[in-house]
Amino acid sequence: MKTDADSLYRASFDGSKLSFLPEAVVVVKAESDIGVVLRLANEHRVPVTVRGGGTSLTGSGSPVRGGWVVDVKALDEIVIHADEGLAEVGVGARIIDIQEAAEAAGWFYPPDPSSRAHSTLGGNVACNAGGMHGAKYGVTRDFVLGLRGFLPNGEKAKWGGRFKKFACGYNLRDLWIGSEGTLGVVTSAVLRLVPKPAAKWTVVCAFEDEAAALAAVQALVGLRVLPSILEFLDRHSVQCAERATGESLFPEQRGRPLLLVEVDGSKADVRTQRAVVLEWARERAIAWKEAKTDAAAEKLWEVRRKCSGAMFELGDAKLNEDVVVPMTRQVDFAKFLDDLQRSSRLPIATFGHAADGNFHVNIMYHRDDAKESLRAQKAVERLMKKVVALGGTITGEHGIGLAKTPFLRFDRSEAEIEAMLAIKRALDPNGILNPGKIFERFQVWDHRPLKVKLPWDHK
Amino acid sequence: MKTDADSLYRASFDGSKLSFLPEAVVVVKAESDIGVVLRLANEHRVPVTVRGGGTSLTGSGSPVRGGWVVDVKALDEIVIHADEGLAEVGVGARIIDIQEAAEAAGWFYPPDPSSRAHSTLGGNVACNAGGMHGAKYGVTRDFVLGLRGFLPNGEKAKWGGRFKKFACGYNLRDLWIGSEGTLGVVTSAVLRLVPKPAAKWTVVCAFEDEAAALAAVQALVGLRVLPSILEFLDRHSVQCAERATGESLFPEQRGRPLLLVEVDGSKADVRTQRAVVLEWARERAIAWKEAKTDAAAEKLWEVRRKCSGAMFELGDAKLNEDVVVPMTRQVDFAKFLDDLQRSSRLPIATFGHAADGNFHVNIMYHRDDAKESLRAQKAVERLMKKVVALGGTITGEHGIGLAKTPFLRFDRSEAEIEAMLAIKRALDPNGILNPGKIFERFQVWDHRPLKVKLPWDHK
Repeated sequence: MKTDADSLYRASFDGSKLSFLPEAVVVVKAESDIGVVLRLANEHRVPVTVRGGGTSLTGSGSPVRGGWVVDVKALDEIVIHADEGLAEVGVGARIIDIQEAAEAAGWFYPPDPSSRAHSTLGGNVACNAGGMHGAKYGVTRDFVLGLRGFLPNGEKAKWGGRFKKFACGYNLRDLWIGSEGTLGVVTSAVLRLVPKPAAKWTVVCAFEDEAAALAAVQALVGLRVLPSILEFLDRHSVQCAERATGESLFPEQRGRPLLLVEVDGSKADVRTQRAVVLEWARERAIAWKEAKTDAAAEKLWEVRRKCSGAMFELGDAKLNEDVVVPMTRQVDFAKFLDDLQRSSRLPIATFGHAADGNFHVNIMYHRDDAKESLRAQKAVERLMKKVVALGGTITGEHGIGLAKTPFLRFDRSEAEIEAMLAIKRALDPNGILNPGKIFERFQVWDHRPLKVKLPWDHK
Repeated sequence: MKTDADSLYRASFDGSKLSFLPEAVVVVKAESDIGVVLRLANEHRVPVTVRGGGTSLTGSGSPVRGGWVVDVKALDEIVIHADEGLAEVGVGARIIDIQEAAEAAGWFYPPDPSSRAHSTLGGNVACNAGGMHGAKYGVTRDFVLGLRGFLPNGEKAKWGGRFKKFACGYNLRDLWIGSEGTLGVVTSAVLRLVPKPAAKWTVVCAFEDEAAALAAVQALVGLRVLPSILEFLDRHSVQCAERATGESLFPEQRGRPLLLVEVDGSKADVRTQRAVVLEWARERAIAWKEAKTDAAAEKLWEVRRKCSGAMFELGDAKLNEDVVVPMTRQVDFAKFLDDLQRSSRLPIATFGHAADGNFHVNIMYHRDDAKESLRAQKAVERLMKKVVALGGTITGEHGIGLAKTPFLRFDRSEAEIEAMLAIKRALDPNGILNPGKIFERFQVWDHRPLKVKLPWDHK
């Protein structure tokens, strides 16, 4: 247990940089430590916030009520069962390490949040992290077969296991997943792997405008092609990347919205899909460029990797909202974003996982400009109401944490929230696990984030 | 609302034929009826058992505490959104109709319980039904994107939706799935579809013994092949089918255990997988036969379709247990089943979904023979303890209902069950939804099933 100032400071915030000092940091060495800690915490009503990589963007890892931060990074064992297509992984393991271990054994672990070099399995389970492979392969939930851990009272629990099916009582596995550390503490998981695709192929397509690009997404799915990746970048995102790199993928069509398409499978399968995708591109896109080599594909992906960091030329603060919109309403959504940009007079750049409707809407502003801040605050609120009106949801992969608590009630009804709170009270009657998150309204605008550079911040 | 004797009788039992008369049958015409019924039931503490096709094998559809049976078969609308790869389906829709509607639109809905011509989506959601496609494609849970329905208090609720990702509060969608109608009443679902595979190929392989067949299963997965179907039939199952049909797939190797393998995908993909599977068969099997045509494939599948009904030559009563065993323990499990057969002196025929470890162990006996019945009862108990000791679970796709309640505590710890019960009390404080199921010990041996022939009973 650490109580020195530096340890407390470093455990006081996550990727949201909202800082609240805990009273102690408990560095877990073995799984069983957690049972002991929880029993003590439950007895003495001490808030417990579990911490892995600390990359959450919502404040779900910030100990807003103080208490103890339980650091589980040491539980990082990764065992690949190559003959079963499974992995047993400690919650402290980094996603990139899980992916590399799987790949070395000829298997594939598809969930790939952009934080994957820093974020750990526990956090990915806590917010049901996604990434670019969601539409074809699914998100974290779809790869978790079993979870082991502790109930808030310190009792051991195991949900699911080293098998693909169970129908034995209530499924608390999937209730824990996405509950942001408020219902239990996970120590390890059994993960399903899929055979590593033998081949993949990438093409980037430019479109007249956002509406044309997003209509093309639906047309591609209508052709019964599910790309392994289908990333959308609106013109603002593309322009940011172009300015940052000084290059353009389509010098004749600079600053047009793009779709980055990757298909994967056996070599033959990729050939078949390539033919369909190229035909689709000829019909829908105004320009396209396919990668003939891995290096060329890497070059195409640069625009996607660079756009997010490059947005900081438009403001010193970014609201990155991971909203979800049903496929049939994506064109309407693009029109709304144009309007939102006009009415808020703020730069808004959007990119994201188009085939599952999960968009990252980035509202840029200057934190010290009170008027811009107010307009950003209002724009986020309009955005959240709009995605719900379109039949979507306010968060696809980040979770609620602290930052999205003011919008929870736009999305969920009072009856639904009451059902969730009833479960919370039932499993954690003393409210020790990650208190203050999801349900209680937190005014993020009243709290100034730390001015600190995190390892995963854009250079 | 019906209260005539015939309606009450017909709603008094499910596929388990355990009969308990309700006081009334409420035939739902519109979704909103259910809210009204639940509010009334909740106020007056009336037990409510929701009924679709009534095919449950566990008694989960039998109104053991009387009260009202709510028949939702009229909520059977199926809408396929072909351009999105989604379906919106009422809970009363039969699985076969969902599959056919999807297929007509070039899509595929993989969950396929053997009851699919009779069972409805609601029941499939209630017990998280599986079937033969589980290992490659997943089970019902993996295809449910959104659920709409009512909380026990009659309030509307919606979990998930017409999109593939959400991280907005607790995931009650997956808590409802598999909760056997005890936590809420579902009225409709948004289902994910996958592109209909362009091609498939079937081969049946005979093995020296069960251990060789099950070792081969793991070897095939180790080759990074995930067959769309991988069905195991032990020698007893094969012999039953052979006696019933008077034919054998391998006249030189009669009565050997079999693996039925189907691979699917694009034509080219199937070609690649076929080569790997045939090489594997040459190394592992003692005989094999591939289907060159659809008709030939149908003929190969006959052994699987016929074996279960044919078992009734071995006894007039069958305990069909859908246990799950981790892949690495399947060979040990086969040895255990030999031993169980010897020690119980009862015929035990096993078949099932080998790639996900979900086996149907069929213990045959004569109901009027008290000694056989007692031996059957003891054999089931030993079986349940064994699968848990092997790291498996007592039910993969049927659920607990009434029949498996005596074994729940072999599988789940007291702390785990207490967490489940806490959730039940939190969401349904008056205990109106499907009372008596899952958690309360029910002595199935004290209750004589009806002697009635159901439409899906084997001819």
